[in-house]
Amino acid sequence: MTNFADKLLANIEKCNNPTVMGLDPKLDYLPEAMLQEWLDEAKKQKEATGQPVNMQMTTGMALFDYNRLLIDAVYDIIPAIKPQFAYYEMYGMHGIMALRKTIQYAQDKGMLVIADAKRNDIGTTATAYANAIIGETKIIDETSACMFDCDCITVNGYLGIDGIKPFMDVAKEKGKGLFVLVRTSNPSAGDLQDLKLEDGRMVYEAMAENVEKWGQELIGESGFSSVGAVVGATWPEQAVKAREIMPHALILIPGYGAQGGSGKDAVASFVNGKGGIVNASRSLMCAWKKRTDIDPMELTEMHGPSGAPLLGFQKATREEALRMRDDLNSALQA
Amino acid sequence: MTNFADKLLANIEKCNNPTVMGLDPKLDYLPEAMLQEWLDEAKKQKEATGQPVNMQMTTGMALFDYNRLLIDAVYDIIPAIKPQFAYYEMYGMHGIMALRKTIQYAQDKGMLVIADAKRNDIGTTATAYANAIIGETKIIDETSACMFDCDCITVNGYLGIDGIKPFMDVAKEKGKGLFVLVRTSNPSAGDLQDLKLEDGRMVYEAMAENVEKWGQELIGESGFSSVGAVVGATWPEQAVKAREIMPHALILIPGYGAQGGSGKDAVASFVNGKGGIVNASRSLMCAWKKRTDIDPMELTEMHGPSGAPLLGFQKATREEALRMRDDLNSALQA
Repeated sequence: MTNFADKLLANIEKCNNPTVMGLDPKLDYLPEAMLQEWLDEAKKQKEATGQPVNMQMTTGMALFDYNRLLIDAVYDIIPAIKPQFAYYEMYGMHGIMALRKTIQYAQDKGMLVIADAKRNDIGTTATAYANAIIGETKIIDETSACMFDCDCITVNGYLGIDGIKPFMDVAKEKGKGLFVLVRTSNPSAGDLQDLKLEDGRMVYEAMAENVEKWGQELIGESGFSSVGAVVGATWPEQAVKAREIMPHALILIPGYGAQGGSGKDAVASFVNGKGGIVNASRSLMCAWKKRTDIDPMELTEMHGPSGAPLLGFQKATREEALRMRDDLNSALQA
Repeated sequence: MTNFADKLLANIEKCNNPTVMGLDPKLDYLPEAMLQEWLDEAKKQKEATGQPVNMQMTTGMALFDYNRLLIDAVYDIIPAIKPQFAYYEMYGMHGIMALRKTIQYAQDKGMLVIADAKRNDIGTTATAYANAIIGETKIIDETSACMFDCDCITVNGYLGIDGIKPFMDVAKEKGKGLFVLVRTSNPSAGDLQDLKLEDGRMVYEAMAENVEKWGQELIGESGFSSVGAVVGATWPEQAVKAREIMPHALILIPGYGAQGGSGKDAVASFVNGKGGIVNASRSLMCAWKKRTDIDPMELTEMHGPSGAPLLGFQKATREEALRMRDDLNSALQA
């Protein structure tokens, strides 16, 4: 069973790109013409069958289709995706089905899948979440059901080791991983995380110490642990500090681009060019919205990894992925 | 729009019982004979149709059926249920369908539903979770989809106000509520929550101050806020302290019974007999397992609120609910 940290680092090396594509779909990220195609399709179906169409199903199909086309555009140059579970849950059962299909599709294309679910609970409940997202569960006829089968999950450590150990157990058994929130990218991260302890540490530093300690038993051949940490690109000083405390943690870095973190900020916690993966969601998913020179739904002269020509919005995403890759690699070489 | 805190307190008063029934189903909570009935049913169906039966669907149906029968046994004496999302997610799509049906069924019987989901994220992502669990989402044809439509949700405040405000906004608009984790019931709660700050406070006390501040704008006629807190019954000293810091917070209290908290411990944060609700999950769901005097699947002489006779396991749950009600009310009068 390959260690998750080793797998992720190998995939990053293969793509020469420490980027993870956040897939947090909202309907208004999709080009108008694409939405219209799905609405037309639903209308046609209604006319043909005389039955009302399940528009939640149409919504879920449109979301998956957009994700699929984004994956098709970049699977050779981006090593992993990070679906944010909230966006799928908000679209109901068919949103969750779109999530399952997205996970499967990305894995089929050789990408790793980091479930951005930020789950947290204790004991058997934490085990239940771990089984749901990175493991499996025994059902009524003694066979097993796999709900999501992601490669890794984000978790919140406010509840202490009781809330982390069950995820580690499943990760260990199945070659999976977890990222514990240490220093989040948002403006109010400091409300709790920057409170100063009587021994001089900040709360996030105490969390980082826990992560380093918890991760010892899951260190791979790469020297990094499958128990990683989330540290936002918006806090480069804290990122340096966090890396000092956690020399073995893989670090998942949100906050690049749209939230204000630069390439240099994003790689502040890397060690010898390694050990981190930088997330971009909107900047990749909605790259076409910044382009006046392309029609998002027209075929372009650019080809994707399968050899097929890319649509305008796919090209915009691929070009943004290449720009981000070069930006991060330049920052790493500086 | 009635304030959630007011609704919950009214329901508690009507039932004369500050108990919430945690519905965290596992297949091995169900009586063997009940599982066998579902397996026999699946077998019959397979023989009749010649098609394989979807055993994940059978699992989901069995889980919902058990929940439904538990609700039928107690809906006149317990004011709310608290489904723990992890248990349903681990059983796959049909587990989630069982969750949706459980929520709807309990609400139809007049119970309030507290989603124990411990969600946490920032900005638009937190809004997405809020929409999924206590709100609604616009879909492709501009109609709205409701995923769960619970009355209240548990959240984790490690990310600060950015992660709480979106839940508060939806709660305010729709008369819903939230409980923020302050002091969890588990043994390692103190790993982070008991760290001492340089100003002498503990981390959980700082979180409690945030909750009291955040909750000001959602205080109802009862004097309690729809922004509540989770404080475990296993920490009665901290519960007293937490109440001092949060005079307006509704408090959700896990840890009674199976985890070791007594009736007296559980009501430590109540004010004039009010302001808290005590959770029991396994002790209610599996009450039949402690009874050698009843057959869980045989009809008994006891009647439920609808007038129908109760099965053995339903009777055990109802009797345990009555015992717990009396235990809590005695502790409140002491």
